[in-house]
Amino acid sequence: MSAASGRAAREYVISASKAALAGEIAAMVTLPMNKEATQMTDPGFVGHTELIGSVCGVEDVTIMLVSDDLIVTHVTTHCSLAEAIQRTKQPRIKTILSLTCDAVSKLIPNPRIAVAGLNPHAGEHGLFGREDIEEIRPAVEWAQSQGMPVNGPFPPDTLFYLAVRKKRYDAIVCMYHDQGHIPLKLLDFEGGVNVALGLPIIRTSVDHGTAFDIAGKGVAGAVSFEKALELAVRLAQI
Amino acid sequence: MSAASGRAAREYVISASKAALAGEIAAMVTLPMNKEATQMTDPGFVGHTELIGSVCGVEDVTIMLVSDDLIVTHVTTHCSLAEAIQRTKQPRIKTILSLTCDAVSKLIPNPRIAVAGLNPHAGEHGLFGREDIEEIRPAVEWAQSQGMPVNGPFPPDTLFYLAVRKKRYDAIVCMYHDQGHIPLKLLDFEGGVNVALGLPIIRTSVDHGTAFDIAGKGVAGAVSFEKALELAVRLAQI
Repeated sequence: MSAASGRAAREYVISASKAALAGEIAAMVTLPMNKEATQMTDPGFVGHTELIGSVCGVEDVTIMLVSDDLIVTHVTTHCSLAEAIQRTKQPRIKTILSLTCDAVSKLIPNPRIAVAGLNPHAGEHGLFGREDIEEIRPAVEWAQSQGMPVNGPFPPDTLFYLAVRKKRYDAIVCMYHDQGHIPLKLLDFEGGVNVALGLPIIRTSVDHGTAFDIAGKGVAGAVSFEKALELAVRLAQI
Repeated sequence: MSAASGRAAREYVISASKAALAGEIAAMVTLPMNKEATQMTDPGFVGHTELIGSVCGVEDVTIMLVSDDLIVTHVTTHCSLAEAIQRTKQPRIKTILSLTCDAVSKLIPNPRIAVAGLNPHAGEHGLFGREDIEEIRPAVEWAQSQGMPVNGPFPPDTLFYLAVRKKRYDAIVCMYHDQGHIPLKLLDFEGGVNVALGLPIIRTSVDHGTAFDIAGKGVAGAVSFEKALELAVRLAQI
């Protein structure tokens, strides 16, 4: 890890984003970036997706994780859990519901999209927090009024079981990073693909880190990269 | 759902707790209770475990979820996510680490216990929240100094994968309800067993809700109840 490698990784991402914006390339696929190395040259660096968003001049970006079992999107991602709660507000939720419906509909005809609650038991009717009632439910009702195939908010702990084991939903909109990342990595650690939503360009990514501990040992798997490449090609052909 | 059924359920739990405290029974196994019905007669009702704790005169209780794949305990359970963050403090974490090590050691010789972080990537060195550095890490270091077999805090999204798929840990200490409940219900919805820790009595429970929607239809499964009963007998014989 060094400042130089962080700077180089950052420059490659910016160049590729500009090429995609200019129409010189149809899509971009990104590989892991070390956040600490990048922070040495860019203290404001939060993540790949946010960096590409800033190059494209858009703020409302998010990531969609696609695995064989399930698709998940996130209302918030790379911030503290306390900040994730603060950001769980109607305007942001509405934006993510719209982005999710648009993106999932391209991959699955007539998708069934569920929205996870923020609190345990989706707040148990206000007993465990009011965000589910005051922020998430109105956003879901608004989305339904717009014709989007969404339902919720549902108790998060049973929702993933219902979606994956009972095949009741195709996609879940999550409120915070680990709500979606814990079950998805548990199900499909090697093969998950990350798609950026809200960008004017197509960008997919592997869904794993740098894994410096196995660098040069010849044991790294390329499944996630292959799937990220395949999905980028598929999205570019729509 | 009625106030009468809520009152009856509450009275049964109190009677059984008193019988266990008096040594008249060796252990108790509880079935689901409807929180809304119970709230009609007892507005302060939070959950089964908290009710039994108050009968036993103890405050520091928690639940341990035991499945074939993994054991998880929780620093906080039935409260809003915002309150869970507020409660993620060194004294409470130390208590749960002690209770977890005691309980898991009874079930598994030389257990390997991991502690999940609170924030995404366990805070990414303070970039996404400071609770992992300021509250969880010191509690883990204290537990290690006491000889407890614990490590962490680890990034939550990869920890469940490492424990379950790579068999690297036997138990995970979680910071909030859904951190542990989402992966465990996804892995083992039918067969999870709930054990109360911190009580002077032995109490296990099924790990599912009332399921009023299938009442009287003859389709309910008894796997979780059978396992809860088996584990109560096993704990009573230690």
